[in-house]
Amino acid sequence: MLQFYSILLCKTAPSIPCVTTEHRGEYRCKVFNLYHQAWSDTATISIGPSSVTDASWVEVDRGLATDKVALLIGNMNYVHHTQLCAPISDVHELTNLLRQMDFKVVSLLDLNWQEMHSAVTEFLLLLDKGVYGLLYFAGHGYENYGNSFMVPIDAPASYTSEHCLCVQNILTRMQEKETGLNVFLLDMCRKRNIYDDIIVQPGLVKVTANIVFGYATCVDAEAYEVKREDVSNGIFISFLKRRVCEDEKVTVMLDRVAEDMGRFEITRGRQALELRSNLSERRSLTDPIQTAECSASYKARNLQWAVAHVLPKSHCLQFDCGVKVQLGFAAEFSNIMVIYTRILEKPKEIVSCSAQLTDFPEGVDIDLKKSNQETLLEAGSLLLIKEGLPSPEAPSLYTRIRSLQRLRTELTFTVCLHYTYSNMDEEVQERQPVTIGKPLVSKLNLHEPRSDRVCSASSSFSLDSFSVTECSSFTEGFASVDSASNTWSHYAQPGRDSSSADRQTSSRSANVPEETDCPEFFGSPEPLVASKSLPHSQVNDLNYKFSDMCNFHSY
Amino acid sequence: MLQFYSILLCKTAPSIPCVTTEHRGEYRCKVFNLYHQAWSDTATISIGPSSVTDASWVEVDRGLATDKVALLIGNMNYVHHTQLCAPISDVHELTNLLRQMDFKVVSLLDLNWQEMHSAVTEFLLLLDKGVYGLLYFAGHGYENYGNSFMVPIDAPASYTSEHCLCVQNILTRMQEKETGLNVFLLDMCRKRNIYDDIIVQPGLVKVTANIVFGYATCVDAEAYEVKREDVSNGIFISFLKRRVCEDEKVTVMLDRVAEDMGRFEITRGRQALELRSNLSERRSLTDPIQTAECSASYKARNLQWAVAHVLPKSHCLQFDCGVKVQLGFAAEFSNIMVIYTRILEKPKEIVSCSAQLTDFPEGVDIDLKKSNQETLLEAGSLLLIKEGLPSPEAPSLYTRIRSLQRLRTELTFTVCLHYTYSNMDEEVQERQPVTIGKPLVSKLNLHEPRSDRVCSASSSFSLDSFSVTECSSFTEGFASVDSASNTWSHYAQPGRDSSSADRQTSSRSANVPEETDCPEFFGSPEPLVASKSLPHSQVNDLNYKFSDMCNFHSY
Repeated sequence: MLQFYSILLCKTAPSIPCVTTEHRGEYRCKVFNLYHQAWSDTATISIGPSSVTDASWVEVDRGLATDKVALLIGNMNYVHHTQLCAPISDVHELTNLLRQMDFKVVSLLDLNWQEMHSAVTEFLLLLDKGVYGLLYFAGHGYENYGNSFMVPIDAPASYTSEHCLCVQNILTRMQEKETGLNVFLLDMCRKRNIYDDIIVQPGLVKVTANIVFGYATCVDAEAYEVKREDVSNGIFISFLKRRVCEDEKVTVMLDRVAEDMGRFEITRGRQALELRSNLSERRSLTDPIQTAECSASYKARNLQWAVAHVLPKSHCLQFDCGVKVQLGFAAEFSNIMVIYTRILEKPKEIVSCSAQLTDFPEGVDIDLKKSNQETLLEAGSLLLIKEGLPSPEAPSLYTRIRSLQRLRTELTFTVCLHYTYSNMDEEVQERQPVTIGKPLVSKLNLHEPRSDRVCSASSSFSLDSFSVTECSSFTEGFASVDSASNTWSHYAQPGRDSSSADRQTSSRSANVPEETDCPEFFGSPEPLVASKSLPHSQVNDLNYKFSDMCNFHSY
Repeated sequence: MLQFYSILLCKTAPSIPCVTTEHRGEYRCKVFNLYHQAWSDTATISIGPSSVTDASWVEVDRGLATDKVALLIGNMNYVHHTQLCAPISDVHELTNLLRQMDFKVVSLLDLNWQEMHSAVTEFLLLLDKGVYGLLYFAGHGYENYGNSFMVPIDAPASYTSEHCLCVQNILTRMQEKETGLNVFLLDMCRKRNIYDDIIVQPGLVKVTANIVFGYATCVDAEAYEVKREDVSNGIFISFLKRRVCEDEKVTVMLDRVAEDMGRFEITRGRQALELRSNLSERRSLTDPIQTAECSASYKARNLQWAVAHVLPKSHCLQFDCGVKVQLGFAAEFSNIMVIYTRILEKPKEIVSCSAQLTDFPEGVDIDLKKSNQETLLEAGSLLLIKEGLPSPEAPSLYTRIRSLQRLRTELTFTVCLHYTYSNMDEEVQERQPVTIGKPLVSKLNLHEPRSDRVCSASSSFSLDSFSVTECSSFTEGFASVDSASNTWSHYAQPGRDSSSADRQTSSRSANVPEETDCPEFFGSPEPLVASKSLPHSQVNDLNYKFSDMCNFHSY
């Protein structure tokens, strides 16, 4: 009887017309009528090229990266041009999301020409055969004769391509590294720059079939940010952030973002995402990294990246009066660090006590009015989440240091302890000088001009951006990788309680969510439904004010 | 008991996390255990924005076209440049496929600058608000400063943009028509033309979020055709034809073609499809046409299109000797027609008899060595399928007329009957002059320069491309639409037996397959499996010879 059923099933079972690796797995046959049912034994179907002989075989193996590296630059505080608001939160959010997908992210705010140039050169050093490279830029920009130009913060009033960075030029330099995927997310205007009649001819782009451009807007059009009182995203990232972690081919993901943006009334006719791709393989940003972990180039990349993200170690300062102060550090971006002080112990006879930072050398970029503040917000840090920082019951003071890329020497300052004894009215001060080395990206000396040595073969990993003394401290660099990863865990998603887990796990896996069978929930910071955080009620919000990301037309 | 089950189901039934219009329809609940089952009443679920109150609503209504119009140009026989082979079959196959999807297709081979310019102008006349417009070009081309240029067959040895047509310029003119979708399929090279240093600044492209470019190759790269003995496609159409009828957003379809092409070893590193899109809505080439069929603009478009595709009616010629000859016509392209003669009746005393065409006026483009041939192949028509033409048992002679767009007057020729009586050795001739008017695209006088009147409002449909006498024959034009559709049915897929159906059904529905629940089979001429008609065994075929579609570098 069962035999009969089997034959019946073979004849009537729906066949799968085009077998892919998605059809791998365990199969059972259920034989049933209204009153009875029976299950067959389980058959494990393994599907691979050898198991199918005819031409209908389609391989849908997912892409594999040898590594994933991203450079994110957000320019806001232009010297001669309109200030922008959104890049800080745009870079911040995209950093978090890319790190969840295991990208090594360098995120930098407010770079001048030299610094952008050096940052790109360092980025190229992190690339190698099969590496996924991603460049995100939020700021002023333009497009002339098919080439895209990113505008540094020090660009003069009437800038030309000489003052800017050409994206297509970076692409050709990436291709020399034999990257596995080249993604450019350009969150900037694409209007013509009428002041620039230089025709830039970047090197010939090779047919690598792995280039994807996600433009925030169309040719000849502007990209917008929405000015509101609080920190908010530009239009592009508002929509991109809901999709970027989807486990789909990067083109499919961007095409969906274009659809989402198309439903947003306020940008209709003004800004629309443009996708440009010749990506032939089904590569996605979520692709796993598969590499011989012990390979020299992989190790070198890890080291190069880690060195540029080493935070000084949190440590205790013991003052003569008996007060013990914790000095801690957190990274907001690769070039923005927050230093905090916290009173760990104080003798009973001391009634009030605070540890303030002072005596920063000239050139360190601190807003003095916002130094030594009781909250991160007052210190100017709108983005750092507090979970990783001292709890509010232990009073702390925060100081935010920007533009670390301009730090030419080790960072020194003084911790000045202000305290009052219970039996005295006068405040007493006690000072301790502190040297914390070159934190985060300052190690890379981005302020120094680069030769274009990156064009040479990438197999010989170049370390010449580090001075000899820095090379000798590599052991320390390794030791600090964990502390760096602690720091980077501060980039975890706001609103998620990640305090305990982040401090224990390593940098690579800290923010990577568990793999799950349900792709909707894979690494997505928000439910993947449209128009949730941009309800139509906000469209009429009076706080909204459009500001475009190109401004040469106003000069 | 049933009550209990209902509650159970409500609690345990899987909910649909993100409801879309795809979830519309009829639902029933089945309650069952091993021994019994019961079905609930059917509930009809209507889903629309008003039926869902929370923000998770996503509309996936498909796109609707007010009409679908395509212009296909294939340039092969260049005067000063390398001849190409593939455009004839590329245009032919794409015409068939687009017609299956209900596109009004104008397909033209071998146009000079004036003719291309006029053809584009006529194409623009067919566009209107909400119309899907598609432009396909196979031939020599180049890309300078972000603009794409199509090279006419009369372009001089060192051509510049002045001798070519700028695609971006056509785009801006299409946008003026408020088209619903603008698709450009450019099957040409994109290398820089070093002889052209003119910087063309086409009008500003508007942010309509409905522009899709499918480039056969990448920037700076060449597009290839594979030279073989028989008629074969270029690389791009080889892959595109398997996907173009898929019922998917056009970007998704092209992205899949890019994947297919990426698996083709022979083009790796040389040619890769580039997709460029800002299409925000989910529009696909298969979208249905929804229009007030009686609307004036729709009728005008139909008329304009039909008039340009009217074939002379097949009719009989009675010769004095008693022989009756059928004179018939078939369209191979909008500008290529085949005329056939067939002996319908002959008196018994006549033993041999043939009806040959002769005395064509000067300027009619006929290869005299290939006129009056016994097979279509010998007549130079590699593509027309014979089903729609006289059956082989009735001997016919075929003559192929090209470049109909250059016909300045009505087409006249002589049918010369050669026959022999059984009792005589000498051949006798009897002649009948024939005038067949202006067939197919010759009605449009594409050889005449156009004013750029197309920029004016499209609502007032322009008929001034027809002369007054032609206008007066509009009734005849209408009457001939059916004969035109018979003709166009010759474009049906080769290999399918479409002879009987095609002759009965109207033009609009002739080649449209029935809607089916199984999207894989929707209008797809071949199973959608990869690398089937391009097996690897062919890669080493000695007949393969690469030929690129740009050639200015060889001058």
